[in-house]
Order: sequence, then C-alpha cells, then structure tokens
Amino acid sequence: MEKIDRRKLVTLLGGLAGVGAAATLVAHADQAATAKSPASAMQNVPWPYKPLDPDVIAQHGFDGYFKTECMCGCFEAIVRPITEQLGSPYTDFPFAMFRYGGGGIKGWATICGALNGASAAIQLLSPNPDPLINALFEWYEREPLPNVHPKGAKFSEIRSVADSPLCHQSIASWTKVSNKHSYSPERSERCGSLTASVAKQSVILLNEQAAGKPIAFALPQATQGCMSCHEKGGVVENIRTKMNCGGCHAPMLGKHPSKS
Amino acid sequence: MEKIDRRKLVTLLGGLAGVGAAATLVAHADQAATAKSPASAMQNVPWPYKPLDPDVIAQHGFDGYFKTECMCGCFEAIVRPITEQLGSPYTDFPFAMFRYGGGGIKGWATICGALNGASAAIQLLSPNPDPLINALFEWYEREPLPNVHPKGAKFSEIRSVADSPLCHQSIASWTKVSNKHSYSPERSERCGSLTASVAKQSVILLNEQAAGKPIAFALPQATQGCMSCHEKGGVVENIRTKMNCGGCHAPMLGKHPSKS
Repeated sequence: MEKIDRRKLVTLLGGLAGVGAAATLVAHADQAATAKSPASAMQNVPWPYKPLDPDVIAQHGFDGYFKTECMCGCFEAIVRPITEQLGSPYTDFPFAMFRYGGGGIKGWATICGALNGASAAIQLLSPNPDPLINALFEWYEREPLPNVHPKGAKFSEIRSVADSPLCHQSIASWTKVSNKHSYSPERSERCGSLTASVAKQSVILLNEQAAGKPIAFALPQATQGCMSCHEKGGVVENIRTKMNCGGCHAPMLGKHPSKS
Repeated sequence: MEKIDRRKLVTLLGGLAGVGAAATLVAHADQAATAKSPASAMQNVPWPYKPLDPDVIAQHGFDGYFKTECMCGCFEAIVRPITEQLGSPYTDFPFAMFRYGGGGIKGWATICGALNGASAAIQLLSPNPDPLINALFEWYEREPLPNVHPKGAKFSEIRSVADSPLCHQSIASWTKVSNKHSYSPERSERCGSLTASVAKQSVILLNEQAAGKPIAFALPQATQGCMSCHEKGGVVENIRTKMNCGGCHAPMLGKHPSKS
C-alpha cells in the first residue's frame, strides 16, 4: 500500500491551504473520519455570531469607507471580526465583491450602500434577520444621521433625516441641511460617518437579538395611510413596500386623486 | 519517519473538502510545493470566469426565484456554475446570504433584487465590472421586460418598461400595463421571469467582455438635462446618480422651479 511522508505532506498542504490549516488537515487524517468539514460549514447561513463592540465596529466602518466605499466598508466592518474569530476558511471570504454597492451601486444612487452591506451582514450572521433589517431601515429613515463622529473625521458633524433608505434621497437631504455640495469632501466624510453609524446600529441590533431582546418595528403612520390603498388588499394594490412614501412622493400629494 | 496511508488520507480528506478536492490535494502532495492555495485564491476578486450559456442561466434564474427570491436566485444562477467549474473551496460560498435582497431588500422595494444579485455576481466575476453594471442598469430601465418566458411559466408574457432600477417602480409599471395586482400570482411569476431576464443579460455582458467586445453605456438625454443642474458642477449639485429621473419625478416637473 502506497505511503506518503507525513512531514512532507504537512509542508505541501501548507502551500495549498496555509500551514495551520495543513496541520489541522493532517491531524484529522491521523485521527478519525468523524470530524465535520470546516469548508462545508462556511456555506451554512447563519454563521456563528458572538457579540461585537459597536464602537469598535463603527470605527472600522469609517476607516473601511475610505478604502472600499460604503457597502463593502460596512459589510467588512461587521463580518471581518467574525471571520477572524472563526478562522479558515471563513477568513477567505471574497470581501471585495461588495465593492459593487458603492454610491448606491456603482454611483446609481439606489439603495444606500451602508444599508445594503449591513443587510448582507445581518443575513449572514443572524438566525432571524428580518426583524433586524426592518428595524435598521426604519431607524435609518427617521434618525438624524450620521450619529457617530469617528476618530480621523476632519469636519464638524452635521446630521440630517434621510426620510428614505435610498442613496440619492439621503444625500439630497443632507446637502439641504448642510448647504454643502454632493461632491464636496464634507459629503464624502459624512458618508464615511454614516457607514460607521449603520455598522454600529447593526451590531447593536445583532447584540440585542443575541441577548434575547425583542426587536421592534412599525411602519410610520403617514406611510400606513398611503398603503391602505396601494398595498395588499387596497383598491389600487400596485406596490409591495415598507418605505416611507413621503420622502420622495410628498411633492406629488397635491396631485393625488381624491380618495372619496 | 512517520508515514500515512495514501488511500486512507484521500478518504479522510474527502470528508473535509469533497472527494474530488481531496484527490486533488493529495495529487498536489504527490507532486510539488509550487501550487497556489485554493483557499486564499477564493478571497481574490475577480474569480476566474469562463463564458456561460445565457439561456441555461436564464432558466436557473427563474427556478431559483421560486426557491430563494430575486436577489439570491439571480446571483446563484450566475455564480453557482462557476463554483462548480472551480471546485472546493468556491463551492462552499454561503449563497443563502443573498436572501436578504428579496423584494428590494426584505420587501422594502428599494433596488430590484435581480439587479442587486447580478451586480454582486458581476463584481465577483469581471476584471472590469463598472461598464457591465452600468450597461445592465441602463438596459433594465429602458427595455420592455421580462424578455424571457422560461419553461414552467404558467401565465402569458406581459412586458413593461420599468423606467427605474427600483423594485417598487418596476412593479408599479408592470401592474399598470398588466392590470394585475402586486400580490397576484401573475406578478410573482413576472418577477421570476425578470430574474431570468436579468441573469441572462448579465451573462451576455460578461461573455461579451470576455470576448473583448466594448460595452456601451450612455445616460438618457432627459436625465442629462436634470443632471446639468443637480449633478457635479451644476448650480444645485445636490445628488450623485445615473438613474433615470423621470421614472419617479415626472409628476413633480410641473412644480419644478424655472431654470431662467
């Protein structure tokens, strides 16, 4: 029966999967076949989550924004520390994939990239992600943001209420309050602080859920009025949403058909 | 010197990383230490891409929509076949993470989930993703969709022009043309066919880029008019976007301040 030199095997597998992983593989080979595959565990969602420090994650979000923009910065701020806890193969996750979401997806200004990245992270780490993502979006719409002023920020903090989870609405609200342009360095830093704020809030919610606390979410009353006709069972029933309608459609309300 | 039984090693590693991968690992161990680590290769974006069959991927998108909704269905339709080409550890990617994007992210109706999933896939697989994602979004806004009628579809094909990359605008446009409700089974199937259409178009674009063809993208003329004031260098400069403004803001134009 063919035999392989154990030490040579560890060295060679080290070239394939990292020295630590190679030693682990061979240890498994030495022992029994009952061990679970760390590789196949990676594909199972959710990944194991241990509470993180929201303030530390906020700073990661701010720093990450200037490296890989809002979506990737937010996702990586939350998920990278978890992969470091879990080790290989989790550490080999292709984080740079999430660069697509910068500027509301390649500058199209659709969904706020921080929210897009946070949602992916929450789905990856929570056994019940829906209430967390709902609560995060509702918080983002109504809260004066950014509510974090990270280390390294150069400009004074200016907060605005986005009234929407969409990038261009969020930015337009902030430019109105700040009287700064959308391509100004102040706006860029604001989006970095917003990435920090969203990453922090996501971790607060993940920690609360992990501690067994209930996560509240309710649609704003004005939105409920719109939805009574436009959502499920309404006379129009032409949308499916939880967004605040007034953030974008308030200027249209003067043209709204009479309900009577 | 300690020796390990080769056949036993293949069997045990098979439990860790799949039989094929185990055989590959041991083959590498038999040969030289020059091979690159497949685990660390996974974190490098882009992953290697080989042209896929757009019609096959379209059907995967449709079938996937009914399992994991629009975002995950679209992403997995494109990326799963690539992971099967590449083998472990790529096959251990946590696809279910992308379930967060269903219904424009948990039913918030922000970015169309098929576009969100396709964008992630393109960023993961393309050496130059920006022109592909720009072209995909512009196509989605102006094209009568869905333009695929997959196997298993029960209802007749009804196409509409979304005029926007946003979920609720896309659905509202379709309910207007189809005279169907947003919670109807016809609308659900339409989103399945739309997932198929977006997955197919993404693969067409990826294949064209892989073949060295130039990828064209231009903002609609009406949008350029809005942007002359609202985008970079304009007198207002309060947004950063490439979206078609008229899709949502046409009803506001009667209230638009005079430019003169």
